[in-house]
Amino acid sequence: MKPLSPLLYYRDRIKIVDQRKLPTVLSYTTCRTEKDVFSAIQKMKIRGAPAIGIAGAFGLYLGMRRIQTHDKGLFLNKLHSISFYLSTARPTAVNLSWALDTLKEKVLSQEERTIFGLKELLYREAVLIMRDDQRRSQRMGRLGARLIHNGDTCLTICNAGGMATSGYGTALSVFFKAHEAKKRFTVIACETRPLLQGARITTWELTQAKIPVTLICDSMAASIMKQKKIQKIFVGADRITRSGDFANKIGTYNLAVLAAFHHIPFYVVAPCSTFDRKLQKGSDIPVEYRRADEVTRLCFKKSIAPPGVRVLNPAFDVTDAKFVTAFITEKGIIHPPFQRSIAQIL
Amino acid sequence: MKPLSPLLYYRDRIKIVDQRKLPTVLSYTTCRTEKDVFSAIQKMKIRGAPAIGIAGAFGLYLGMRRIQTHDKGLFLNKLHSISFYLSTARPTAVNLSWALDTLKEKVLSQEERTIFGLKELLYREAVLIMRDDQRRSQRMGRLGARLIHNGDTCLTICNAGGMATSGYGTALSVFFKAHEAKKRFTVIACETRPLLQGARITTWELTQAKIPVTLICDSMAASIMKQKKIQKIFVGADRITRSGDFANKIGTYNLAVLAAFHHIPFYVVAPCSTFDRKLQKGSDIPVEYRRADEVTRLCFKKSIAPPGVRVLNPAFDVTDAKFVTAFITEKGIIHPPFQRSIAQIL
Repeated sequence: MKPLSPLLYYRDRIKIVDQRKLPTVLSYTTCRTEKDVFSAIQKMKIRGAPAIGIAGAFGLYLGMRRIQTHDKGLFLNKLHSISFYLSTARPTAVNLSWALDTLKEKVLSQEERTIFGLKELLYREAVLIMRDDQRRSQRMGRLGARLIHNGDTCLTICNAGGMATSGYGTALSVFFKAHEAKKRFTVIACETRPLLQGARITTWELTQAKIPVTLICDSMAASIMKQKKIQKIFVGADRITRSGDFANKIGTYNLAVLAAFHHIPFYVVAPCSTFDRKLQKGSDIPVEYRRADEVTRLCFKKSIAPPGVRVLNPAFDVTDAKFVTAFITEKGIIHPPFQRSIAQIL
Repeated sequence: MKPLSPLLYYRDRIKIVDQRKLPTVLSYTTCRTEKDVFSAIQKMKIRGAPAIGIAGAFGLYLGMRRIQTHDKGLFLNKLHSISFYLSTARPTAVNLSWALDTLKEKVLSQEERTIFGLKELLYREAVLIMRDDQRRSQRMGRLGARLIHNGDTCLTICNAGGMATSGYGTALSVFFKAHEAKKRFTVIACETRPLLQGARITTWELTQAKIPVTLICDSMAASIMKQKKIQKIFVGADRITRSGDFANKIGTYNLAVLAAFHHIPFYVVAPCSTFDRKLQKGSDIPVEYRRADEVTRLCFKKSIAPPGVRVLNPAFDVTDAKFVTAFITEKGIIHPPFQRSIAQIL
């Protein structure tokens, strides 16, 4: 089984699975400009920290591809402005900035090339980021799979799967690789309100891979942990600080506190591109607050609350490093004390 | 402001607000037989521990009213069988059995009456249970309101309001009475998946009462507690054991663990009819598991998960007494050690 990629690339466009419509409809949105990509990221047609990094890289290529000039100064100015524009599509995940910075640095390091050559370089670098991501996902999966034992039930939140990367995923890659290694285990997926990525995408990916999965509402996790039905927790991450504090989908901190209370190992699976060397602690991470109607309208349709009700809709929460058993990266599994082990692996 | 009652009674029928349709539509379902009442309780047209007790009492009256016999033995047999039938509509809340037992005991204590007189007795007793509930709700509210200070933000889950009782409610009665006493405070309502009673009913009741309320997804509570934005938590209960372990809407145990971790007082507001003298500990409470499509179909419409996905759908969870700061009952506020204080108040 090779997990579906959320993004297909061509010379003049990318095609993105519109993940808001999964699992009912598998349809693609075509992006030809940086604005199309910005909109797809912001509206969460594509989501997941590594995947929006990849989409951002292609967005920068598609934007620069259309710059018709022979003035290299102008071209490089545009590189900075389009890159900055794309980086603001979503503020919390660092992989987007990381991918854009990677492309920019590549161009600046080969400034002597022709403008045509630089455009070619951007394309090749975006493709490289995507292919590297596939390799990294599989490596994380293989490392994490060693932690899964026959008979385990593992909990996960949101979708840290193929659709959040370019195939395989982060937390779900652990499950895919454990399944490939013929381990017998089951997964409990938190539905992940408000946008239900767990219910819609994680159960869909795991079902396709024939991994037994049970769906629960987010609020049920505590009760199931109390019944000793969960042996391990695997989650993804959107940004990890030098101290190991990290942001991930709203509800992750909830699970982390519960896991500590119920003595359940709590693993964070993320590539090194998710670590932000610039930030020391969790409170430094910007948390995105999104529109109220994501909460009040179920999948943007029927209203489930009185008109005008006040809503808080943080898309992420921040979990302290002390709750993390280990970080699983493509370069190895990192144990506490994290301040030191993170510095070493980066 | 007098909160709306979820139930209107007449000699030959009751009318029940169909709470599944709130807040979009305020419509009534008419119940003329015990079967109608059973179905309304089971389908959660009416819900909330005290409210289903009241509905059950009227259901028993409506069932017995239609028994055409002069044989008192047959009549009393029917009393037991209809009462047993109604008690199975939902297993977790004890108020339903409590109300049915109260009516049965009343009939058995006045067995010498005519069958016509016994039917009259059932009607009057059902009305009495409903009126007592209104008084009890207000008393709990007044007691609990003393705990609320100006500037507090209080969290609640599900709907423990007017719609869960016969007006005012349990946990929400505390807010209504604090508001009547001109205290300035705000409420955060957990939406309460899967059936969204918090989003649909609690925000609706509080908005009508002009109490400031903010809606969140259940998984956001932890993050908001971490930011020290919540001073107190008030929840209802469906069954409380002699030791103080109690069942309430799924997600309550989650909040209790988080409250303990973040040092937030956690209050349970419930009338004495919610205490079950027969049970010693939480694991003795039967927890109802409901249909998968409550989770997989948002308000029974659009599917949010792949067809056939396995689902766990416990309607309640059980919280250990050690997490409870105090129980607020109509007879006073009960503090730990609960084994002793509960025995005293009962």
